[in-house]
Amino acid sequence: MILCTDVKGLRKLVKDTGKKGKTIGLVPTMGALHEGHISLITACSRENDLTIVSIFVNPVQFGPNEDFDQYPRDLSGDCQKAEAAGADIIFTPDAGSLYPGKDMTWVETTGDIVKVLCGRTRPIHFRGVTTIIAKLFNITMPDKAYFGQKDAQQVEVIRKMVNDLFFDVELHIMPIVREQDGLAKSSRNIYLNKEERQSALVLYKSLKCAQSLFLQGEKNLQTICSAVHDMIAAEPLGSIEYVEAYLLPGLIPANEEFNGRALVAVAVRFGTTRLIDNVILGE
Amino acid sequence: MILCTDVKGLRKLVKDTGKKGKTIGLVPTMGALHEGHISLITACSRENDLTIVSIFVNPVQFGPNEDFDQYPRDLSGDCQKAEAAGADIIFTPDAGSLYPGKDMTWVETTGDIVKVLCGRTRPIHFRGVTTIIAKLFNITMPDKAYFGQKDAQQVEVIRKMVNDLFFDVELHIMPIVREQDGLAKSSRNIYLNKEERQSALVLYKSLKCAQSLFLQGEKNLQTICSAVHDMIAAEPLGSIEYVEAYLLPGLIPANEEFNGRALVAVAVRFGTTRLIDNVILGE
Repeated sequence: MILCTDVKGLRKLVKDTGKKGKTIGLVPTMGALHEGHISLITACSRENDLTIVSIFVNPVQFGPNEDFDQYPRDLSGDCQKAEAAGADIIFTPDAGSLYPGKDMTWVETTGDIVKVLCGRTRPIHFRGVTTIIAKLFNITMPDKAYFGQKDAQQVEVIRKMVNDLFFDVELHIMPIVREQDGLAKSSRNIYLNKEERQSALVLYKSLKCAQSLFLQGEKNLQTICSAVHDMIAAEPLGSIEYVEAYLLPGLIPANEEFNGRALVAVAVRFGTTRLIDNVILGE
Repeated sequence: MILCTDVKGLRKLVKDTGKKGKTIGLVPTMGALHEGHISLITACSRENDLTIVSIFVNPVQFGPNEDFDQYPRDLSGDCQKAEAAGADIIFTPDAGSLYPGKDMTWVETTGDIVKVLCGRTRPIHFRGVTTIIAKLFNITMPDKAYFGQKDAQQVEVIRKMVNDLFFDVELHIMPIVREQDGLAKSSRNIYLNKEERQSALVLYKSLKCAQSLFLQGEKNLQTICSAVHDMIAAEPLGSIEYVEAYLLPGLIPANEEFNGRALVAVAVRFGTTRLIDNVILGE
């Protein structure tokens, strides 16, 4: 496995690979790799000749009061895990090489798709995400890129960016990986104390409840959201940021009964830790 | 020569070319091709295996009171000229395929680079330019792209976008092509009546004067701009929008005497027609 910190060096590796007719897969991460990331790397490695894992805690997707400084970092542990999962190249650029000055070129998706859900409290987040992903796509020229369904809104926004800007990359979205007790894997789970960790199980329980209601025939997303909301609200340590549901793809509001696929997504604080989770209803 | 209106079809042609190890050159235009464009196409054709000329009057780079509707269009004439100059593919997408909805993904360069010169009166112009160029780059995957020095600020903004977003494309900037009497070739020159056309010659004369002052040893850009301004102001039919000078690359202000290269750029209205022109001082 090659550890590459340098855009030029990576670009050369990428071009040499492309010239040989081989396929490139990209797994963009912020490090602190857990089994969710590993599932992306494993799939990428299985489906591509060259697997690039980027590890970069992207400053411009964090708001001023968010956890950029505290965000967990463990490069040597990450390298071991990524290599074991099949990574060929780890790309760890420094912020100065990706953002050399204060004036920059932003890639920004507009519309309700970035305003609902996490966009309500994280107004600059998705602009930061689309900008870094555009850079990584241009640097690594992937045939396929891998993202986790855990970040459901990110998936929809990146899908829109790819379509709007005609990036020639196939998006592969991998299912949420959970702890045995149902808590979705997240680099931020380490922030939770024991009581919060226990309390946070309500997220998965409430989403399972949404799934059950749907399977029992409930097709009104407001009704489903109310049930999820009530269940989480009954948990004293949780403070709800949102419980919302939208049609997929594109996060389209549905007032009446829905057909097709819908996303039910929640964001809840346990102490100072903000967790998100979601479930997709329908096929 | 192939006329292609369809993103998918073009992408297939591009991929087949890339797979054969051939190089692709892109000349993005808004049509109404004149000798300036032809010089770009000729250079592109000489330096690449496949020359793609895009013809698309990009709605999102026009302000609400600008000349989008009136902008000259002559597809059949353009095709003949482009083919004669060596174009292999003409790409003429419709607006709906490049901008399918009102919510879109913008590519936007920020900072003084888009606020000076034309940015003062055309606040959304460069966002429209960088967005369409990013789309065209992703669709055509060019090794080299050709732009005219006439649109000097556009060149600097696109250069910054390419650097910031790591587009893997070489920019080739071709010199301004002029009429025999010195008027810079422009698709908008056809708007001028006979008196305005004559009056507009002051642009080139004033920029030649800037060049002479510089060659005589003048290194203060304010002094040079004043001379250019006075010369144009003496022309009764011209109404000055700006006469400004900045260091290259990047359009950096220079208060004192400058070293290196500087751009002196003017925008002047003759009747309802807005013309721009410029000269580069230094090597």
